[in-house]
Amino acid sequence: MQAGRHFEDVQVGEGWVTPTLSVGEAEMVGFAREWDLHPFHVDPVAAQDSVFGRLCASGLHTLLLTYRLFRGLRLFEGTTLAGLGLDSLRFHAPVFPGDTLQVEVTVADAAATRTPDRGRLTLRMVTLNQAGEPVLEFLLTFLVKRRPQPAA
Amino acid sequence: MQAGRHFEDVQVGEGWVTPTLSVGEAEMVGFAREWDLHPFHVDPVAAQDSVFGRLCASGLHTLLLTYRLFRGLRLFEGTTLAGLGLDSLRFHAPVFPGDTLQVEVTVADAAATRTPDRGRLTLRMVTLNQAGEPVLEFLLTFLVKRRPQPAA
Repeated sequence: MQAGRHFEDVQVGEGWVTPTLSVGEAEMVGFAREWDLHPFHVDPVAAQDSVFGRLCASGLHTLLLTYRLFRGLRLFEGTTLAGLGLDSLRFHAPVFPGDTLQVEVTVADAAATRTPDRGRLTLRMVTLNQAGEPVLEFLLTFLVKRRPQPAA
Repeated sequence: MQAGRHFEDVQVGEGWVTPTLSVGEAEMVGFAREWDLHPFHVDPVAAQDSVFGRLCASGLHTLLLTYRLFRGLRLFEGTTLAGLGLDSLRFHAPVFPGDTLQVEVTVADAAATRTPDRGRLTLRMVTLNQAGEPVLEFLLTFLVKRRPQPAA
């Protein structure tokens, strides 16, 4: 297994693109029934009268799928210490059944912390559909390990 | 069924408190295995060496549970048009197996939109554990229906 990156291994502006992932209607409806039961997420007929015009995924589902794609890159596998937060999250466009998602990940900020064994990274995530349109965008901030320092 | 609130029915500063909800270790681990596979979310032994000291819930799980508690209030049931985004989301403290969560919901902002049949609401969500400590906080912004205007 490739070891995950430490704080020192990445720099602001560096980026990666995930593989793609498709989501079907059954999976969308299943998620929404459990977590986000709106007619436009679970009922194709009722969804025709919604602002979306047809059934679309819960935004929370799109967020989780985005996170799954990001984690699949294994960039910070074993070096992630804790999530701190999300900022400026916007649902730019609906995700429809059969859409194919892909995530552009960019290092937006990197900051040392008071504790010398860790650093704080902020990644910009932009989730695109198969037409290249952004459907979701947010900043993810988390703590990552620094490389062990040699004893003086 | 009680009809959900329209844009005109709420005012900035108004608030509600949800019922409580408890989450067990099996549910936490099951969620993390599917969506957020870190050792400190799925392996009680490995979690002892984490910054949390013991197994804790994925922050995304806490977010979904918070949303479930909020939706259970049915405040905007049938009047919600679309989610717009999340802001300033912070994981203030870990959620441990057996913790009991409750959410304080406050109207933080209300704004008319260019389209006269809807308005934009921002709710502040603060999720507390059984000790009354905040574990999660964020702003949720969404579009909600305005009441139909009588014809002139």
